[in-house]
Amino acid sequence: MTIREKAAAMKLDSPRMAAQPAETRNAALANIAKALVEHSEEIFAANGRDLQEAQRDNIPEAVVKRLKFSAQKLQDVAKGIEDLIKLPDMIYRTQLVRELDEGLTLVKETCPIGVIGVIFEARPDALVQIAALCIKSGNCAILKGGSETKHTNRVLFALIYEAAVQSGLPANCLFQAEHRDEIAALLECHESVDLLIPRGSNAFVQYIMDNTKIPVMGHADGICHIYVDKDFDVEKAVPIIIDSKTQYTAACNAVETLLVHRDAVDKLMPRLWEAFRTHQIELRATRDVAGQYDCALATDKDFETEYLDLIISEKTVESVDEAIDHINRYGSHHTDCILTEDAQTAEYFMRMVDSAGVYQNCSTRFSDGYRYGFGAEVGISTGKIHARGPVGLDGLFTYKYKLYGNGHIVEDYASGKKEFHFKDKIEKLF
Amino acid sequence: MTIREKAAAMKLDSPRMAAQPAETRNAALANIAKALVEHSEEIFAANGRDLQEAQRDNIPEAVVKRLKFSAQKLQDVAKGIEDLIKLPDMIYRTQLVRELDEGLTLVKETCPIGVIGVIFEARPDALVQIAALCIKSGNCAILKGGSETKHTNRVLFALIYEAAVQSGLPANCLFQAEHRDEIAALLECHESVDLLIPRGSNAFVQYIMDNTKIPVMGHADGICHIYVDKDFDVEKAVPIIIDSKTQYTAACNAVETLLVHRDAVDKLMPRLWEAFRTHQIELRATRDVAGQYDCALATDKDFETEYLDLIISEKTVESVDEAIDHINRYGSHHTDCILTEDAQTAEYFMRMVDSAGVYQNCSTRFSDGYRYGFGAEVGISTGKIHARGPVGLDGLFTYKYKLYGNGHIVEDYASGKKEFHFKDKIEKLF
Repeated sequence: MTIREKAAAMKLDSPRMAAQPAETRNAALANIAKALVEHSEEIFAANGRDLQEAQRDNIPEAVVKRLKFSAQKLQDVAKGIEDLIKLPDMIYRTQLVRELDEGLTLVKETCPIGVIGVIFEARPDALVQIAALCIKSGNCAILKGGSETKHTNRVLFALIYEAAVQSGLPANCLFQAEHRDEIAALLECHESVDLLIPRGSNAFVQYIMDNTKIPVMGHADGICHIYVDKDFDVEKAVPIIIDSKTQYTAACNAVETLLVHRDAVDKLMPRLWEAFRTHQIELRATRDVAGQYDCALATDKDFETEYLDLIISEKTVESVDEAIDHINRYGSHHTDCILTEDAQTAEYFMRMVDSAGVYQNCSTRFSDGYRYGFGAEVGISTGKIHARGPVGLDGLFTYKYKLYGNGHIVEDYASGKKEFHFKDKIEKLF
Repeated sequence: MTIREKAAAMKLDSPRMAAQPAETRNAALANIAKALVEHSEEIFAANGRDLQEAQRDNIPEAVVKRLKFSAQKLQDVAKGIEDLIKLPDMIYRTQLVRELDEGLTLVKETCPIGVIGVIFEARPDALVQIAALCIKSGNCAILKGGSETKHTNRVLFALIYEAAVQSGLPANCLFQAEHRDEIAALLECHESVDLLIPRGSNAFVQYIMDNTKIPVMGHADGICHIYVDKDFDVEKAVPIIIDSKTQYTAACNAVETLLVHRDAVDKLMPRLWEAFRTHQIELRATRDVAGQYDCALATDKDFETEYLDLIISEKTVESVDEAIDHINRYGSHHTDCILTEDAQTAEYFMRMVDSAGVYQNCSTRFSDGYRYGFGAEVGISTGKIHARGPVGLDGLFTYKYKLYGNGHIVEDYASGKKEFHFKDKIEKLF
């Protein structure tokens, strides 16, 4: 079966997946956790092969670290599945009940999106988390993991799939794509796949976005800013900036650009410069700062760059408005932070900055589904259509309108014979 | 200024538009309604020129009917604006307040999408409605109406824009594109335009969807079905089918295909055939029905066709499951209806059919923002990402995550020095 045929079969089966009662989906999750723990030796053996091949192929150490599926990671994913089971079911939740006229009732009800394609990095725990989120939310999923974990993924997927189907989920609930050329085929499946969630490098996500008609949820760039206002506390500022840059430098929510109010420069920079030297962070700054410290001048190109490295750019600004405009122009609408003790300035900044995450006095690194308490995330979206920011369970739902009548026709209303009266029984706009 | 430059300026101004208080946006709406009524003669004169040119150019009568902006239509749009003013404000609504840890609080808050491009058919009332919806929702809008109403649109837009800006909205709140070649330029503005809403012919909407990286909300095809179950009431069925086909035959929510349970054929068809002859509806049916009546055989091609004409296809099916699979395979996920007196079968059908509207015992023509009590609609979406079905005000919002800290850094949590405790103060999942 080609990916296209498989996706079409999944699309037809997706309402059957959605119709599974919560008990069946939760039982499947419990059985998956159990199977993973029971077959841990098999999983670790496969993971050992991936690690061996990674060493043979000189895969960078940072990547190898993510490949490793340890006993601790297994325990974490099993715990994650248990947490997911405890979350309330979100399928078929009523959002609106409105009587349009006598005997004609409109009901707005949540339902799963349908068929979701997730392409993710070489991290075995990601496969388990994503499959579990899709099962919990009643979606069918096509999964494609990084090739560096192919042995681990094969074992994990076989265990997950078998437990899911034996628990009563439809045969087309999950499918694993294993070959890189299947990605191109998947991108063509706009008639069957409702949503694509690509994770990985900027270039990869951008490639997906540019080459499919399927809606894509995710983010390419992550150019995050910290604006240091004139009313800032230097004791908080230095650790926050260092944490935002160094806690995981290659992450999308690491800070890349500092915007510093002119009146904050003298208080901030001496302490910060010292911390930058300690952490071997390279500074590229506008003239006033660059002139005082031993650093390169920042160019427009710097402000457009996601370094993903121990480099940070600085721009001195005259006002919070200049900072806001800079962020809205150069940023990627991911996560941006203000450091200020002035609540009004903070509120103004947080309203005016057009990003999924707007922070006051804390590290940009908090932008993450786990840290937001979502249990797990399928990705982080910088788009504004559908889910935004870290996307957990509730980003995997849509809704439908159900209309119950008793022989009602539109001509009666068009001709004026009858009139709508719109009486809301339940309404939850947000 | 090119469209691209204009869109970029609007993007930068969009947070300022979002930040306007509800009073300012509502005052702008009131002033727009007032200006339209006060300048009605000017509007009617411009509309007269459009009608003259339409006659000169032999524009079809059905289109001309929509071009006409009568005193009644002016009264309707003014009334529509007044209704919109009365609707509650939806900007900056709190959806979640979660304490992640002591002094670290996450707030999920609604906000406008930003810059929306709407390309719509030649209907002057559409321009007013769409501009009003965007102002109410705090979005900036680029509007491009059908060229057949260019004189009317120019006068309407000038009145709307002047009233909006004089009421205190930013200069970049609204922009009208007037030339057809500006559409191509607009499609390139993915860095500035957050959402496109195209309305019009299938081919046009499909062209937009295929030629832009901007998210598109709308629908191309509208292949709607009515499934006549074995437990149906013929007294309801015949008027519903006729209304669904004839009340506005060229509409996207008109029915195109009937699926008839084998046990319903003998009771339905004699009465329906008579009604089809009265309304000059051409029937194309599967063999068992086509053999008994003087009509052509329906082919697979028929089931894939949106006739938008007095033609209907029929397929006899063995079960509700066959009907569901047919709809999910051939339909366009717009609006599909079951005629049955059996509540359980209805519920099953409505859950399993993967469409924005799933109806029991009423006309498919009800699928419309006004008839759903939304006041006005910007379009109907057959997509499942973001808004679905008729889209009113609430489809024009997104949200952002605000995180308030007091020097919090991620390393404290990564190292185990601190732990999240996740206490929800307010949570509205849907």
